Amino acid sequence: MSLATVTEARAEAHSEPDCSGFEHLPGLPTGGRDTFEFELDLRHAGPRRVQLRVEWVGSPKLPAVWVAGGISAHRHACANTLDTSIGWWQELIGAGQSLDPSKFCLLACDWVGADGDLDLPISSADQADAIAQAVELLGIRRLHAFVGASYGGMVGQAFAVRHPQRIERLVCLSAAHRPHPFASAFRALQRQVVALGQLQCADDIGLSLARQFAMLSYRSPEEFGARFDAPAELSGGRARCASEGYLSRCGQSYAERWSATAFLRLSESIDLHAVEPAQIMVPTTLLAVEGDWLASPADIDSFAAGIAAPTEVECIASSFGHDAFLKEPTRINELLARALRSANVPAGVH
Amino acid sequence: MSLATVTEARAEAHSEPDCSGFEHLPGLPTGGRDTFEFELDLRHAGPRRVQLRVEWVGSPKLPAVWVAGGISAHRHACANTLDTSIGWWQELIGAGQSLDPSKFCLLACDWVGADGDLDLPISSADQADAIAQAVELLGIRRLHAFVGASYGGMVGQAFAVRHPQRIERLVCLSAAHRPHPFASAFRALQRQVVALGQLQCADDIGLSLARQFAMLSYRSPEEFGARFDAPAELSGGRARCASEGYLSRCGQSYAERWSATAFLRLSESIDLHAVEPAQIMVPTTLLAVEGDWLASPADIDSFAAGIAAPTEVECIASSFGHDAFLKEPTRINELLARALRSANVPAGVH
Repeated sequence: MSLATVTEARAEAHSEPDCSGFEHLPGLPTGGRDTFEFELDLRHAGPRRVQLRVEWVGSPKLPAVWVAGGISAHRHACANTLDTSIGWWQELIGAGQSLDPSKFCLLACDWVGADGDLDLPISSADQADAIAQAVELLGIRRLHAFVGASYGGMVGQAFAVRHPQRIERLVCLSAAHRPHPFASAFRALQRQVVALGQLQCADDIGLSLARQFAMLSYRSPEEFGARFDAPAELSGGRARCASEGYLSRCGQSYAERWSATAFLRLSESIDLHAVEPAQIMVPTTLLAVEGDWLASPADIDSFAAGIAAPTEVECIASSFGHDAFLKEPTRINELLARALRSANVPAGVH
Repeated sequence: MSLATVTEARAEAHSEPDCSGFEHLPGLPTGGRDTFEFELDLRHAGPRRVQLRVEWVGSPKLPAVWVAGGISAHRHACANTLDTSIGWWQELIGAGQSLDPSKFCLLACDWVGADGDLDLPISSADQADAIAQAVELLGIRRLHAFVGASYGGMVGQAFAVRHPQRIERLVCLSAAHRPHPFASAFRALQRQVVALGQLQCADDIGLSLARQFAMLSYRSPEEFGARFDAPAELSGGRARCASEGYLSRCGQSYAERWSATAFLRLSESIDLHAVEPAQIMVPTTLLAVEGDWLASPADIDSFAAGIAAPTEVECIASSFGHDAFLKEPTRINELLARALRSANVPAGVH
């Protein structure tokens, strides 16, 4: 296998190129970035040369925790000295939080396929293998924890199965060992919306609309009932429902940042996910959310029952459904704090 | 108001024109059909000339029960001597069933807008007014009951509010007095899928895909989990989920029978629905289904609480969710039998 490390220029990460002094960024953790290029033997498509773009906060000398979110998450998990913009898990990472950059080196990556260049089936196992390569190239012997939510939880499961020597504990939020058939059906239809857009070179419209459907699966009737409790109005001779403006903005913003190919391949990757729970041999903490039909408490209980290693399951109620890992930071912080200091790691692992 | 009745030739209803003898159709109830044309003052679009196509089984001398289903239901509720094909409520109507053509004259109609010719906002109140006109033209003084499910339940509510002198009791299945904001959001996105198809004159693809999304809202994760419990497979370099063939057939079959305009205007009509429960003054029976998020038990309870007349609510569990009124005939039969013989009609109404 041919390996190469490409260190990016720091300037690339800044919108203000000469804003380099820490004195301007008093509370921000120190950030680092690297892009690794290597050959990856894709499960469904064979060997391909890929790049993995990684960002971290906290000293690389601290215990390493890999954090991973949904298919639209990326390497920028929190604001830092390299990139001061808000990250996708901003509220969970910081001084005093469970994911404290003074205690852990917190790493995240752009998913393989997120740039849209790889129009091939990509599996959660491929993501796990790519992360394992990056972990090795970064000189990290073993992750203190892999903390993954949604698709990131599936990738964490695959990492635990395929690279057990590189992980001490798995924290898996809102993800079961296999997709639910109803959720798969819903994602398959979203992908057909994208394909319908592509038919007429309206990729952005199709992608925006698919994302809006996806948003509904990430949230709950309870939340929408509270937020959009106004009757539909007629506008231009058509009914316009109270949530349409919000959803449209979500979809457009997504379509500006993502390509149709990336969405199709990462959405599909969720449906191709399959892990044998008994092959997870590291202590595991699972989170389930009542009302999340993408990763239902029943499916997560079934997953937990199959894991051979010590496993804890916490089930919470949240009107945010599948998005609780993003929208319930207090609850998630408590769970992560317990999981990361958990003493149920088998003796001799450290 | 100008009124005209257009009686259709019986031959139109037959696929086999010379299959006219009752001896060939031993168990089928006698069917009748009529098409009424009149001016209807549409709530959102003003006066329009419309046609209402009605079909019935049972003698017009029997107590009349109007039956109405979802936006894709139509006047052919059950096989009869005029049309021997299976109807949309086949299992509920027949000898020994709650809707027995030897005891009731059971009437149904094609929705106003179902032919796709009326590209205007159509409200549940418009449907109720059209049905009231047909009831008058048919010489029916008063309906023994209006039995409506889903959109048909909304129309039944509007009928009870707007034409109380023409209805003795309302049976409303899986419909609340207003749409839920989350369900409205989901339907609004379905309409955008149709619009995306129309952009490239691929009405059928958009309509099929919108129907497939709708199917998911009519069913439940429980049902899909049991029916499509197989992992996704790669086919032509793409993941194909176990339910995709089924959904695709549902969508295609729908697109062959319906127009984009009809779908858009009837879907929209659900989102424009609004009835003040306190204005329902007739005895009412409601059905709610656990797990139906289009018409949740909470919303139906809230609806029931506002009705001034005697009201009964039954809540059942069904893995079919919103489609329980079609897929749980035994339970629905029991409920309808009780509701139709109910003694809680105020004295003096008959």
